[in-house]
Amino acid sequence: PAHLDLDDLETRARSALPAEVFDYYAGGADAEVTLGEAPQAWRSWRLRPRVLRGVDHADLTTTLLGTPAATPVGVAPWAYQGMAHPDGELATARAAAGAGALLTVSTSATHTVEEVASASAGAPAWFQLYRQHSPVHTDDLARRAGAAGYRALVLTVDLPVLGRRRRDLRNDFALPAGLRMANQPAPGGAPAEPGPPWTAADIGRFADLSGLPVVVKGVLRGDDALACVRAGASAVWVSTHGGRQVDLVVPSAHALPEVVDAVLGEPGPDGADVEVYVDGGVRSGTDALVALALGARAVFVGRPTVWGLATGGAAGVRAVLDGLSAELAHAMLLCGVASPADAGPDLLVRSGWLPR
Amino acid sequence: PAHLDLDDLETRARSALPAEVFDYYAGGADAEVTLGEAPQAWRSWRLRPRVLRGVDHADLTTTLLGTPAATPVGVAPWAYQGMAHPDGELATARAAAGAGALLTVSTSATHTVEEVASASAGAPAWFQLYRQHSPVHTDDLARRAGAAGYRALVLTVDLPVLGRRRRDLRNDFALPAGLRMANQPAPGGAPAEPGPPWTAADIGRFADLSGLPVVVKGVLRGDDALACVRAGASAVWVSTHGGRQVDLVVPSAHALPEVVDAVLGEPGPDGADVEVYVDGGVRSGTDALVALALGARAVFVGRPTVWGLATGGAAGVRAVLDGLSAELAHAMLLCGVASPADAGPDLLVRSGWLPR
Amino acid sequence: PAHLDLDDLETRARSALPAEVFDYYAGGADAEVTLGEAPQAWRSWRLRPRVLRGVDHADLTTTLLGTPAATPVGVAPWAYQGMAHPDGELATARAAAGAGALLTVSTSATHTVEEVASASAGAPAWFQLYRQHSPVHTDDLARRAGAAGYRALVLTVDLPVLGRRRRDLRNDFALPAGLRMANQPAPGGAPAEPGPPWTAADIGRFADLSGLPVVVKGVLRGDDALACVRAGASAVWVSTHGGRQVDLVVPSAHALPEVVDAVLGEPGPDGADVEVYVDGGVRSGTDALVALALGARAVFVGRPTVWGLATGGAAGVRAVLDGLSAELAHAMLLCGVASPADAGPDLLVRSGWLPR
Amino acid sequence: PAHLDLDDLETRARSALPAEVFDYYAGGADAEVTLGEAPQAWRSWRLRPRVLRGVDHADLTTTLLGTPAATPVGVAPWAYQGMAHPDGELATARAAAGAGALLTVSTSATHTVEEVASASAGAPAWFQLYRQHSPVHTDDLARRAGAAGYRALVLTVDLPVLGRRRRDLRNDFALPAGLRMANQPAPGGAPAEPGPPWTAADIGRFADLSGLPVVVKGVLRGDDALACVRAGASAVWVSTHGGRQVDLVVPSAHALPEVVDAVLGEPGPDGADVEVYVDGGVRSGTDALVALALGARAVFVGRPTVWGLATGGAAGVRAVLDGLSAELAHAMLLCGVASPADAGPDLLVRSGWLPR
Ligand SMILES: Cc1cc2nc3c(=O)[nH]c(=O)nc-3n(C[C@H](O)[C@H](O)[C@H](O)COP(=O)(O)O)c2cc1C
Ligand SMILES: Cc1cc2nc3c(=O)[nH]c(=O)nc-3n(C[C@H](O)[C@H](O)[C@H](O)COP(=O)(O)O)c2cc1C
Ligand SMILES: Cc1cc2nc3c(=O)[nH]c(=O)nc-3n(C[C@H](O)[C@H](O)[C@H](O)COP(=O)(O)O)c2cc1C
Ligand SMILES: Cc1cc2nc3c(=O)[nH]c(=O)nc-3n(C[C@H](O)[C@H](O)[C@H](O)COP(=O)(O)O)c2cc1C
Repeated sequence: PAHLDLDDLETRARSALPAEVFDYYAGGADAEVTLGEAPQAWRSWRLRPRVLRGVDHADLTTTLLGTPAATPVGVAPWAYQGMAHPDGELATARAAAGAGALLTVSTSATHTVEEVASASAGAPAWFQLYRQHSPVHTDDLARRAGAAGYRALVLTVDLPVLGRRRRDLRNDFALPAGLRMANQPAPGGAPAEPGPPWTAADIGRFADLSGLPVVVKGVLRGDDALACVRAGASAVWVSTHGGRQVDLVVPSAHALPEVVDAVLGEPGPDGADVEVYVDGGVRSGTDALVALALGARAVFVGRPTVWGLATGGAAGVRAVLDGLSAELAHAMLLCGVASPADAGPDLLVRSGWLPR
Repeated sequence: PAHLDLDDLETRARSALPAEVFDYYAGGADAEVTLGEAPQAWRSWRLRPRVLRGVDHADLTTTLLGTPAATPVGVAPWAYQGMAHPDGELATARAAAGAGALLTVSTSATHTVEEVASASAGAPAWFQLYRQHSPVHTDDLARRAGAAGYRALVLTVDLPVLGRRRRDLRNDFALPAGLRMANQPAPGGAPAEPGPPWTAADIGRFADLSGLPVVVKGVLRGDDALACVRAGASAVWVSTHGGRQVDLVVPSAHALPEVVDAVLGEPGPDGADVEVYVDGGVRSGTDALVALALGARAVFVGRPTVWGLATGGAAGVRAVLDGLSAELAHAMLLCGVASPADAGPDLLVRSGWLPR
Repeated sequence: PAHLDLDDLETRARSALPAEVFDYYAGGADAEVTLGEAPQAWRSWRLRPRVLRGVDHADLTTTLLGTPAATPVGVAPWAYQGMAHPDGELATARAAAGAGALLTVSTSATHTVEEVASASAGAPAWFQLYRQHSPVHTDDLARRAGAAGYRALVLTVDLPVLGRRRRDLRNDFALPAGLRMANQPAPGGAPAEPGPPWTAADIGRFADLSGLPVVVKGVLRGDDALACVRAGASAVWVSTHGGRQVDLVVPSAHALPEVVDAVLGEPGPDGADVEVYVDGGVRSGTDALVALALGARAVFVGRPTVWGLATGGAAGVRAVLDGLSAELAHAMLLCGVASPADAGPDLLVRSGWLPR
Repeated sequence: PAHLDLDDLETRARSALPAEVFDYYAGGADAEVTLGEAPQAWRSWRLRPRVLRGVDHADLTTTLLGTPAATPVGVAPWAYQGMAHPDGELATARAAAGAGALLTVSTSATHTVEEVASASAGAPAWFQLYRQHSPVHTDDLARRAGAAGYRALVLTVDLPVLGRRRRDLRNDFALPAGLRMANQPAPGGAPAEPGPPWTAADIGRFADLSGLPVVVKGVLRGDDALACVRAGASAVWVSTHGGRQVDLVVPSAHALPEVVDAVLGEPGPDGADVEVYVDGGVRSGTDALVALALGARAVFVGRPTVWGLATGGAAGVRAVLDGLSAELAHAMLLCGVASPADAGPDLLVRSGWLPR
């Protein structure tokens, strides 16, 4: 396949989109320290390739909460995809299905829960939920996600309020007038007052409502991860929300080992081992390989798929997903790693680390 | 409230003030290494946000030496405010009172002890004392501060002599001719020879003279902090004097943990726990949150209020104080921290730190 | 001898060569992080010169697998030298012989196994082998190397597939049409399908086939190094393949201590101690001295000899080799080191390291 | 006194001197990494000022090998001062005497041993010796130094051969034709072949020859320092020779603690404690204070006095020495340090160090 050049893709997306839309997608909270650190943080390690292990081919297939996927690289949920391309979430869903990559669909989508599900055409997808609407409406979305065939519910817990995004404040950014908020309550209904803050108890409640396993997204601490698992989560997803919430938080790459450590071997509600995912600044096959070596079962990408969608619709997203998976397979082969499960901490040394 | 942009505010202050006055306010000692490091040093840590803790709102109210304050962000004492705005300290006092923020008034003020006290109109304020005048005059200021209703006396101990400030030397800077030195001894009185160097014994002496609790400002070591407490201090204030005294000293952010550690749980003269404050380079809500997490009970800001006063008088200072408090409350909420007392070291990891 | 200036030499090589040929030689994999880090990594240590040890002269002579060499600085195998100079590998061979430096000849040479051997005119040389042709052809090359008088076989194990080299992809680089692939199977023969992936077992097999000691090149881990030795290797060669394979691997300089540690004192197949070599970013006498102090018996250089060949043919390579050896001897003398064997870890402290 | 601005002074010296003479003075070995790191290395620590210790005044007076000095800041030996100013070493000697600073005179002087001694007019000075002439001549210089009233002999041991200084190579630098080599053997005498390399045994020999205590200059390791002391040295002088010998050696600031540690409390030949000095990149009072806190009894400066001499003759050197001493006294006072002996490791934390 053609060679993936994400820097170039980002540049093209910048030209393709209105400046303030690009800024909305690209920006982060406050001084954007966390945003900038995310990709660098993956480079806190260096790879220790294995040689002469008889590895001739890297097999990327895996399962995520029991669902098979062709690659451990998935699509993170991101909002308002209709601003990037008329087909919005439908295009992304088709691309993910084509690539065999797991799709996560945001509540803040420009197509409904059900529309995106049917664009996925049976390919596995997860639905992401916020606490931003009234409890009644949110509960309803959870039920609809279960009914629509999603395979898991992703609770995003790092957004009790929106982060302060300087670019949007400077641009005085507002969503385009006609943008369809497909999963919002019908106008004229009950006021969209969110309910009491979520606690760990909501995890089991949403699992019951939806009949789906629950993934908790936005966890950066081992103690929180363990609390989620004890409260019924099937997986935790390490994330800084793309650096868009609090600035100066620990980068996902540095939080990941602590979270893995805390929940390693803990059983989920169905008895299977809890899984850990991660996102934030994953931009290459070696970044993904570092994440797997640190114990992530999957990595998710946000902005790379934004650039893909903005520049090429479904094909653009597909090229990003295929390109990253190809890079990962290549890096695995060159490191003597036969499969995601074969990756482990022996592959890594701290960058700048010197043995004695 | 409007979004606080301190970089922009500083730029505007630079235009508003004569260059050498700006330099006097902005500058530091020698090569200004300490000055430049101060804000960076707060970023030696990264935040570990807590999730799902049921925190819906951050309450900033606190008490400082028993006096209630609406926010743990206070105003550091800084000299000659009349150069920044005709209303000088009176404007700052009104702003602090309005914001519910604790005010510290410098001896080197352009309004008298009593004038500033009455501008504070009952809002809590502290008075800061130097050893730069004759002992008789200094003792008198201490007594007047007690009588004028200040709630504490702040002894600044990091100024046995003035630091060498290169900008002022290059600019051949002198205070403007007409500037009112409101707390100086009347001309023609006794020569302003300072007495013997202060020692820890002066702490109790000033407490007695003023009838006020004593805060020792300019402490950067645990052993010194403990000695102050043993000698009767009610609080210690970690500070490099805004990088204006010795260059290349440890930044406040790095000295704070050692000081907290040394006096943690030590009782002050009235039996209550000793308090620790900090200033230097605090420029955002996350900086302030880091300080609280490290054990500071309050953070003080100097130059941000200089820029506020120079560009907008009382309203300018008020906007800075409100803006920083709003940022702090926002960061606390996003980190699951309900109140200043709820912040602790679990919120922090060293920046660049990698668990094993 | 004239003063060696490698920066200048590289600049001249850039002018002398077609841009895409220069890029082929100079480039590395992906983002070229590993490429750029290689020379910096040698500077992870600082030298601790010894004084008053009575050292008046540094003697560079050494033996490599029993073969005498005038210097521990050897020539790394690199491909397609005919693109750099019409005499290609023959010029390099003459230069190495003249300098008394060990030569390693790549399979991907533009002169045959035997032609280069005879240009070496009895000076010791090693032959490097890849798993890129059919097993039959590769076995044949191994036998021919033994017959042609090479002193060792170097198995390059870090190239199960080619790295992704962005410069070549961007330049759409292809080898020049007429370039002679001297060691390739005759056209029209069996298809060049490589066999099963190499494992440690191939080490002994190639030793038997060629009757030569085997050096395993491209090892970056202690466990791999030990496995090679246990499988019959006489030496391991720490290398990232000039940063051309996987990007973001540990730099050779940082992998070297771990490899030395793992095989130190292990006997090779002939009972003599196993040897460790290293290449990657060695650009000065002090870099080489650091490598020796860390336990390398020899250091090899790639690109510096590329620039030498491209700008001055045999004489150009010779100047590079003599210049680096002169620098090494000079640094050794100034550090009180009499011979390569006299270099040890006491010569080094970690850069930025501070004793307590 | 006027404010010392070394950056400005260096700039003025650059204009005052022929470019290649400036380069000779300013330059270092090879890539000049060590040269550039020297001043930075002092900033590997931050100061921890003491407060309320009753320190009102810093007294710089000290003794060096029993000789009183008004300041612990001395003049390092540097060659060919006649290129910087017609009065050369005589001017420097007068400046040092005026400042009460210890002077070290290089063998490579443009005035004789005796001429400089008499310019010192009874102020204490040391004479520095190289192994660059015939043993007979060197022994004679040692005897003459003793006879001329120098108080110690400084053996420079880091120059078995000259370092490779790229600037001089590029400039094809040669000493100006008429430059007087005042301490060289008379032309027509015995050839200037140096004898066998110096060993520790030469320390006692030179002490006997000259009747003077011996200081060994150019030591960067604890083991070497101890060997020198055991062989009869009265002091060791930590130095990289201004970064002019081997590049990439440990900076003096980082070697100093190890040397202090190794010889701390060791008695010298006269029973008094051995002393440790340091030079290299000392450019401010805080640099000097760090050195004292790390255990140096004196710091020496080279290039700052070059710039002083080149721009202002004796007065220029005097201003540098007075300026640095004033800065040191100021920093000491602000740190609560009453005298050089009062400085200790409690004044320092590693820069970037974070307590837990
Ligand atoms: C424009 C944008 C919108 C996002 N919207 C959501 C969202 O609706 N729900 C959610 O859980 N995360 C959202 N995220 C966060 C992503 O799921 C993901 O955590 C982040 O983008 C990963 O970092 P990356 O962009 O560096 O790959 C959004 C991110 C971006 C960039
Ligand atoms: C212009 C200026 C004048 C100051 N004057 C005083 C003073 O009179 N008394 C005092 O204790 N501290 C004084 N300080 C130090 C401040 O109280 C405070 O420690 C410092 O400004 C905090 O750092 P920041 O400016 O980075 O917030 C002054 C600081 C500045 C910038
Ligand atoms: C242009 C080029 C071609 C190379 N070809 C080979 C090769 O054919 N076989 C091999 O084992 N290594 C090859 N290498 C790797 C070198 O042997 C060596 O590991 C590397 O160049 C050392 O790093 P340096 O160039 O920084 O000195 C090649 C390197 C370069 C730069
Ligand atoms: C131009 C120059 C000439 C020097 N000549 C001598 C010398 O003759 N003998 C000697 O022991 N050191 C010599 N040195 C080294 C100095 O004594 C001293 O170690 C060094 O200059 C200290 O570093 P600084 O220049 O950064 O202060 C020389 C240094 C310079 C810069």
